[in-house]
Amino acid sequence: MTTEALTILAVRGMPEVRPGDVVADLIAAVADLHDGDVVVVTQKIVSKAEGRLVEVDPALGAQAHRAVVERESVRVLRRRGDLVVSETAHGFVCANAGVDLSNVEPGLAVLLPVDADRSARRIRDGLRARTGAEVGVVVSDTFGRPWRRGLTDVAIGTAGVAAVVDLRGSVDAWGRPLNVTEVCVADELAGAAELVMGKASGVPVAVVRGVCPEWLRESSVRAEIVRPPAEDLFR
Amino acid sequence: MTTEALTILAVRGMPEVRPGDVVADLIAAVADLHDGDVVVVTQKIVSKAEGRLVEVDPALGAQAHRAVVERESVRVLRRRGDLVVSETAHGFVCANAGVDLSNVEPGLAVLLPVDADRSARRIRDGLRARTGAEVGVVVSDTFGRPWRRGLTDVAIGTAGVAAVVDLRGSVDAWGRPLNVTEVCVADELAGAAELVMGKASGVPVAVVRGVCPEWLRESSVRAEIVRPPAEDLFR
Repeated sequence: MTTEALTILAVRGMPEVRPGDVVADLIAAVADLHDGDVVVVTQKIVSKAEGRLVEVDPALGAQAHRAVVERESVRVLRRRGDLVVSETAHGFVCANAGVDLSNVEPGLAVLLPVDADRSARRIRDGLRARTGAEVGVVVSDTFGRPWRRGLTDVAIGTAGVAAVVDLRGSVDAWGRPLNVTEVCVADELAGAAELVMGKASGVPVAVVRGVCPEWLRESSVRAEIVRPPAEDLFR
Repeated sequence: MTTEALTILAVRGMPEVRPGDVVADLIAAVADLHDGDVVVVTQKIVSKAEGRLVEVDPALGAQAHRAVVERESVRVLRRRGDLVVSETAHGFVCANAGVDLSNVEPGLAVLLPVDADRSARRIRDGLRARTGAEVGVVVSDTFGRPWRRGLTDVAIGTAGVAAVVDLRGSVDAWGRPLNVTEVCVADELAGAAELVMGKASGVPVAVVRGVCPEWLRESSVRAEIVRPPAEDLFR
């Protein structure tokens, strides 16, 4: 199920992305892609290209941000100071409903893509058309965790690469069924990509080369990763 | 703050680890380490080497496991069926208090290391003594997440490589302070390593080559990652 070595490459030279841009075109112009690569693309540029921007009054500061966060939340789970942890229409549980004011022109806030699995498929199809390479795509965003400090990048959309790999049926070295069964490789790929991207260095795309070929299949974050409320012990 | 390319290498040839083994010696015998590498070691072999094994009666099955889980928990947060989510003495919130029955001889259960930061320091010091290489070490384990399906590997101990990197003071491309400030690189390193390890393939060690030199510093999962209950909105 695994590979011997992985390489993670920062993709340099991406321009500032604007509404209406075709993300796959911008990536294809600067990245050298091979069959089997996984292209990790940060949500910020996907949202910008898709025009998921709303105006906020900079004079209102945190208050303007808060109004957008409320609008993007279907359920607020917790509030503390300026922090809101809420469930979005996609089923994600995250801080501030994924609304972001950084790395965007002052006066604008960036919302999550409407359907990041679809965004990933569109980028995958575009890259295939422009480069001929059969790649997987992960759209990543930066989320916190309730019991661990620090943020990590996780997958909010996937195409052509597994979101969760099921090891059920595998046995351990003693021949017993493994009790650790499902690995969220899409989140691990997103986090690995973040290690070469940084937050302020303007690298919104990375390529992971050498992933297990069995992981290259149709997939969906919404279907595979988002935990339905009925399974949830902490909402 | 970042690097251009990372390589993640599976370390092949590790023997079955037994109580009393010196993990650093076993790794040094098979891995080719360079200054600045981060060595990710799965908790299972660290616990085995440290003798963190308890006998369970296989005839009792899940019941025996449950008794060990209760003993290793300082607070049970949720129960559903066979699953217990609890807080351990280390402050980790995880399933079954980190107690594991897979990949260990039948009749035994593996507990978490008493202090995985100390375990990481011991491995780091041993590798330095045996190979001369100045490396970082992450001890990793496999945890679930409340709102996302699938498990990912995270750091339970670190030495010589940052657990959380603070980007406060950095500015975005528009010159404003970044609102995403703290990145848990240790968890991203652990997850990246898992991508080459798999669960059943018997590769308990991976090397991450090419991390940002600024990340190579003293560190602690307990001090940097474990969220104190007072900050916690979900316990």
